[in-house]
Amino acid sequence: MHISQMLEQSRRKNKSTFSFEFFPPKTAQGVQNLYDRMDRMHSFGPTFIDITWGAGGRMAHLTSEMVKVAQSVYGLETCMHLTCTDMEKSKIDEALKDAYKAGCTNILALRGDPPREKEKWEATAGGFRYAKDLVKYIRDTYGNHFDIGVAGYSEGCEDQDDHELLLEHLKEKVDAGATFIVTQMFYDVDIFLDWVDKVRARGVTIPIIPGIMPIHTHAAFMRRATWTKCNIPTAWTKALEPIKNDDAQVREVGKTLIAEMCRRLLEAGILHLHFYTMNLAQTTRMVLEELDLMPDMSSPIDKPLPWRPSLGLNRREENVRPIFWRNRNRSYVARTQDWDEFPNGRWGDARSPAFGELDAYGVGLKGTNEQNIKLWGSPTSVKDIANLFVRYMSGKLDSLPWSEAPISKEAESLQTDLINLNTRGFLTINSQPAVDGIKSSDPVLGWGPHNGYVYQKAYLEVFVSPEYIAEVITRIERDPDMTYYAVNKAGDLKTNAPGDGPNAVTWGVFPGKEIVQPTIVETVSFLAWKDEFFRLGQDWANCYSSVSPSRYVVEDLMDTWYLVNIVHNDFHVPHGIFPLFDGLEVEDMAKPLHSTRVVNGDEKSSINGAAAHTNGVNGQELKN
Amino acid sequence: MHISQMLEQSRRKNKSTFSFEFFPPKTAQGVQNLYDRMDRMHSFGPTFIDITWGAGGRMAHLTSEMVKVAQSVYGLETCMHLTCTDMEKSKIDEALKDAYKAGCTNILALRGDPPREKEKWEATAGGFRYAKDLVKYIRDTYGNHFDIGVAGYSEGCEDQDDHELLLEHLKEKVDAGATFIVTQMFYDVDIFLDWVDKVRARGVTIPIIPGIMPIHTHAAFMRRATWTKCNIPTAWTKALEPIKNDDAQVREVGKTLIAEMCRRLLEAGILHLHFYTMNLAQTTRMVLEELDLMPDMSSPIDKPLPWRPSLGLNRREENVRPIFWRNRNRSYVARTQDWDEFPNGRWGDARSPAFGELDAYGVGLKGTNEQNIKLWGSPTSVKDIANLFVRYMSGKLDSLPWSEAPISKEAESLQTDLINLNTRGFLTINSQPAVDGIKSSDPVLGWGPHNGYVYQKAYLEVFVSPEYIAEVITRIERDPDMTYYAVNKAGDLKTNAPGDGPNAVTWGVFPGKEIVQPTIVETVSFLAWKDEFFRLGQDWANCYSSVSPSRYVVEDLMDTWYLVNIVHNDFHVPHGIFPLFDGLEVEDMAKPLHSTRVVNGDEKSSINGAAAHTNGVNGQELKN
Repeated sequence: MHISQMLEQSRRKNKSTFSFEFFPPKTAQGVQNLYDRMDRMHSFGPTFIDITWGAGGRMAHLTSEMVKVAQSVYGLETCMHLTCTDMEKSKIDEALKDAYKAGCTNILALRGDPPREKEKWEATAGGFRYAKDLVKYIRDTYGNHFDIGVAGYSEGCEDQDDHELLLEHLKEKVDAGATFIVTQMFYDVDIFLDWVDKVRARGVTIPIIPGIMPIHTHAAFMRRATWTKCNIPTAWTKALEPIKNDDAQVREVGKTLIAEMCRRLLEAGILHLHFYTMNLAQTTRMVLEELDLMPDMSSPIDKPLPWRPSLGLNRREENVRPIFWRNRNRSYVARTQDWDEFPNGRWGDARSPAFGELDAYGVGLKGTNEQNIKLWGSPTSVKDIANLFVRYMSGKLDSLPWSEAPISKEAESLQTDLINLNTRGFLTINSQPAVDGIKSSDPVLGWGPHNGYVYQKAYLEVFVSPEYIAEVITRIERDPDMTYYAVNKAGDLKTNAPGDGPNAVTWGVFPGKEIVQPTIVETVSFLAWKDEFFRLGQDWANCYSSVSPSRYVVEDLMDTWYLVNIVHNDFHVPHGIFPLFDGLEVEDMAKPLHSTRVVNGDEKSSINGAAAHTNGVNGQELKN
Repeated sequence: MHISQMLEQSRRKNKSTFSFEFFPPKTAQGVQNLYDRMDRMHSFGPTFIDITWGAGGRMAHLTSEMVKVAQSVYGLETCMHLTCTDMEKSKIDEALKDAYKAGCTNILALRGDPPREKEKWEATAGGFRYAKDLVKYIRDTYGNHFDIGVAGYSEGCEDQDDHELLLEHLKEKVDAGATFIVTQMFYDVDIFLDWVDKVRARGVTIPIIPGIMPIHTHAAFMRRATWTKCNIPTAWTKALEPIKNDDAQVREVGKTLIAEMCRRLLEAGILHLHFYTMNLAQTTRMVLEELDLMPDMSSPIDKPLPWRPSLGLNRREENVRPIFWRNRNRSYVARTQDWDEFPNGRWGDARSPAFGELDAYGVGLKGTNEQNIKLWGSPTSVKDIANLFVRYMSGKLDSLPWSEAPISKEAESLQTDLINLNTRGFLTINSQPAVDGIKSSDPVLGWGPHNGYVYQKAYLEVFVSPEYIAEVITRIERDPDMTYYAVNKAGDLKTNAPGDGPNAVTWGVFPGKEIVQPTIVETVSFLAWKDEFFRLGQDWANCYSSVSPSRYVVEDLMDTWYLVNIVHNDFHVPHGIFPLFDGLEVEDMAKPLHSTRVVNGDEKSSINGAAAHTNGVNGQELKN
C-alpha cells in the first residue's frame, strides 16, 4: 500500500502512527541479526519501514535483497531509498525493477551524499543530477505504481544553506511527482514547525513526515547534530552535558527529551513519526513506550491471518500455507518464491507446485558451528537431546535446529503435555491446541476480521524412535478421528489420510465472507518439509567433529527415527492427541548411543519392520 | 459411475440394492409429472435408473433429454437404452454424444423391437443388425467411457425360442464388450436361476441383473406375461385369478408374490433387483417396503452435500451453489448449464459467470393458468396472499410460485416464526436456521462424510412491503452481525455486505479434508435470482385476467415490494433474524388493493424514498 494512503487512513481515524528506518549492515551476520530485529520490531506495529540505499555494487544489491525479505518474509510494508550517487540509468532501472518484483510500492528518491572519497557531489555520467530528475523518471516509467517520497531539509543540508533555495527545490521535487516528504533529523520543534508553515505557504500539500533520531550515546548525539547542522535547543544541552559519560542515563534522559519533542509534534497535528533506528531497537522502543504508542500486548495489532502474510508482489492474495514451516517462516517463503501463483482460499488451487531445492535457497541451519554448540551443547544420548527439547518447551532455550523463534504464546496451553512427552523421549517439533470456535478478537488465538470465530484442529508433529513407531501408528489408526503422516529420512511414507487432498487445520468464519482456511496439512508439502527437517538435523550433526559422540547420536536419530504429524480431526477435544502416548517411554535414554548404533538400512529403517521390535505389535496388522 | 462398479461395491458390502426403469412419456405434462416422480423416487435410494430408448425422431430426442435432466438436475446415475431399430449410424453417434455430454456413463445396448408397422425386425440401412454390433461399435468408439449392458432372455424372446442359440448370442455380446446383463421380466425364479447357471457355464462372469415387473393390475400382468412368453407359476395364477377384478387386492397380493420372488433371488446371491416401474411409484414402493429395502427416513441415504449434487459431465466436481434456488433446483441447473466450469471448493473460483436468460431455459411458472388458480385461489388482498404463505409454511399447501416442493423438514424448527411473520404480511421466500456444529450424521441437517461437523448461518429471504423496507434496513444495519441485500423489481440494490465476495452460509468440517462450503449468498447470483423471482410473480399475476382484482394485487406486490435476503453471521444464535420484525405488521392487509394502487415510479419505488412512509425513520439515516 502507498505510504500516503496509509497516512490518510490514520488521519481519518485521528490515529498517531510511526515508521522505522534501517540501513544495510556490513556483514552477513549483521544482516541476519537485523532481520531478527526487524521481525521483533514488527510487533511494535510500525506503519512501514525504510531501507536506506547502499550505494555501490554489493551494498546496492543488499538493499534490494533486504527490501524483498522485509516485504515477502516479514510482511513489512517497505519504502526503498534510491539515490543518484554513482548510479547510471541502467542501475536505477535495475533497482526499480527489483523493488517492483519484491512487491515494494514506495520509493524515497534522494540525490544522495557524495561518495566517501569525494568532497563534493558530482552527477554520474548517464545518471541523474537532481532528486527531482529521479522523481520524474520514476513517475514517467512506473506511473502511479510507486508512491514517491523526497527529503525535506528543514535546517539546510550539507552543501546548501540557502533555505529559500532549498524550499524551491522541494517544490520542484513535489511538482515532479513526489507524494510525501521525510525530513532530516532535528531536535528543535519550533524550527521544524516554522519550516512546515513555509512549505505549506508554497502550496505544497503532501504529507510531511518528521525524522526522529533517538539518542543512543552522547557522542553519537553530538556527532549527528554537527553533521546535519541541526540546532540543539539549550535545554537539551543542559540536560545531557552533565551526564554525558553515563550511557544509560543519556538514553533515559534522551528518551524523555525526544518523547517531549514528539508530543509537541503530535499536538501540532503531525500524526506520523519516522524513527531513524540506526538498526537498534532499544532507544526507539523506549520513546514509543514513553509516548504510549506501543501496542497493547493483551489485544495485539490486527492479525489478518494466523501467520504473517507476505507483501511480495504475487503473494498479497496468498492466504493458505502448510503448517510445517510455522517455526521457519523465512525458509517457507524462500522455497516457494518462484511459484507463479499462490494458494488463495484453498490450498487445492495451487495445483501441487514444487518446493524449491534446499541448497538453492540456503535454508540450512543458521549460525556457526561454535555458536550452535554453545547453544545446544554436546549431547551424547537421547536423554541429552530430549532435555534440550524440554528446555525449549519450558521457555528456557530460544531456539532448536527446527524452530528459529522461542516457543509461541499459543503453545502455552499445551506446555505441560509437551514437556511431559519430550521427557519420555518423544521429541515434539510443532504443535497447536484444538480450538472449537473462539472469537476472532481473542488476543492469543484470534485473527481475521471482527465478529468472527476461529477454529483449529489439534496438531502434533513429533520425532519418534523406531522402537515405538509401529505402536504409535497402531494406536492412531484405531481412532477414526485421527489422521497422520509418518516418514523417515529415506522417504518411506505411511498415512491414513483419505486421498491426496489437504486437511484444513485452522479456519475462520467471518461476517459476509467465505470460510478462510489459512493452514493445512498435506502430502507434497510434508515431503518437502521432511527433506528440510532431516537436512537441518544433519546440519546440526555436522557442527560436531566427525568422530565425536554428539555427531554420532544426532546422526543416529536422523538415520533411524520417524517424523510423524498427527491431526485430531475432532476439534472439540482440546488435548486429544497426547493420550496416544500413554505408557510409552523411550528405553535406555541416558545410554550413550555410540556403541549401540545400528547401521542404516537394517530392519529398523522401515516402518513395518520396526514393528517387530515393539511391545508385541505385529507389523502385519498395519494397513498400508 | 459405471453400473458394474457400483454392483461390485455393494457386493463387497454384501448389500442388497435396486434400480428403476422409466420410459419417455408421450405428453409434455407426462414428462413433467415423471420428473417429479423420479425426484420423489430418488429418496427410495436406487443405485441407478434406466431410461428406455424412444425409437423415432421426437421420442429419441426425449430419451436424450430425460437422461440429461436425470443426471444433471436430479443427480440420478442414469443408464440410457439404445436400440438398433430405425437407427442409422449417424443417429447412434448423436445419441451417444448426447449421453456423453450429459455425464451418462452407462448404456444398455439392444437390438430393439420391430417398429409398430412391421411384423418382423429388419436392420436399418447403414445401421446395425445385432446388439453385439452395437456393443462393439460403442466399445470401439468410446473405449471404457461407457459401461455397456445387454439384454438377457432367460425365457426366450419374441422372435427366438432356441435357448441355446440365445445363450450363444449372449456370449457373443459379452465377448463384444458388454459388462453387465439385464434380463427380461419373469415370475419363475427356478427358470431364472437355472438360466443363470447355463450362462455361467459358458464362461460369462459379468453381473446378471434380474428384471422385476411389479403387478399393477391383473390385466396388465397377464398381457405382459403373454407378450414376453414368460412362465407364470401355478401358485401365482391360483392367488391372483380369484381376485382379478379388485385392483387394490391384486396389488396387495402381487406385492407379496413379487417380494417372495425377490427374497429367493437375494438368497441365491443375486444382490441387485431392477424394477420395471412402468413410470409408477406405488407398486415398486410396496415391494421395496415388503423387502425392507426402503431407506430408514430417520437416518436417510448419504447426502454428500446439503443440496442434490448434479451428475452432469462437467458438474461432478461442483460443490458450491447460491442459496436462492434451493426450492427451484431445476431452474438453477438450467440457467447455469452452459458454464464452462463450476465452482468447486469456493464460489470465487467460478469468476462471476453469467446466468442464462430466463426465457432461454423455460424456467417460468409451471402448470396451466387453471391449475395454478385452483392451487393458489384468487387473492384480492395482501392478507389473501399472506394466508397462502401461512398455509404453505404449515404444510397445508404443497407449492408456491417460488417453491416447487413442500416446505422442507429442515424448516420445521423455524415453522412457528415463519407462520408468525407471514401472518403479519412479511412473506418468507426461503430460510434456514443457524446451526452451530452438529454431527454430519444428523438425519435432518447432516450431510457429507462421517465424523464431521456441519454449520449454517441463519438465513431469511423475505418479501417486504414498501411501508416497512426502510425500517427493516435500519434495524438490520444497527446489528453488526447481520448482512443483507435488498432489491426491487427495477433492480435498485442496497446492501451492507463487505465487498463483492460471497458469504458462506453452509459449511462442513471433516476429517482429513479442506472445509467444504456448499451454499453461499452473493451479489451477482442474487440479481439473477431477483429476475427469476419477479418473473415468477408476474407469471402468477398473468394467470388471472387482466382486469381482475387478483391480477392487480399480485402485480402491485411485484411492482412495489422489496425482495430482501438477510444473513445472521453469528451462527450461535438460532433464531437471530426474527426479532428484527418485532412490532411490525403490514397495515390494512385485508383491504382490497385495487382502489389504492399507486403507479410504478412514484416515491414508493425507491428504497430511500420509501423511508418517508415509515414510522419516523428518516431516509437520510440510511447508509448507501
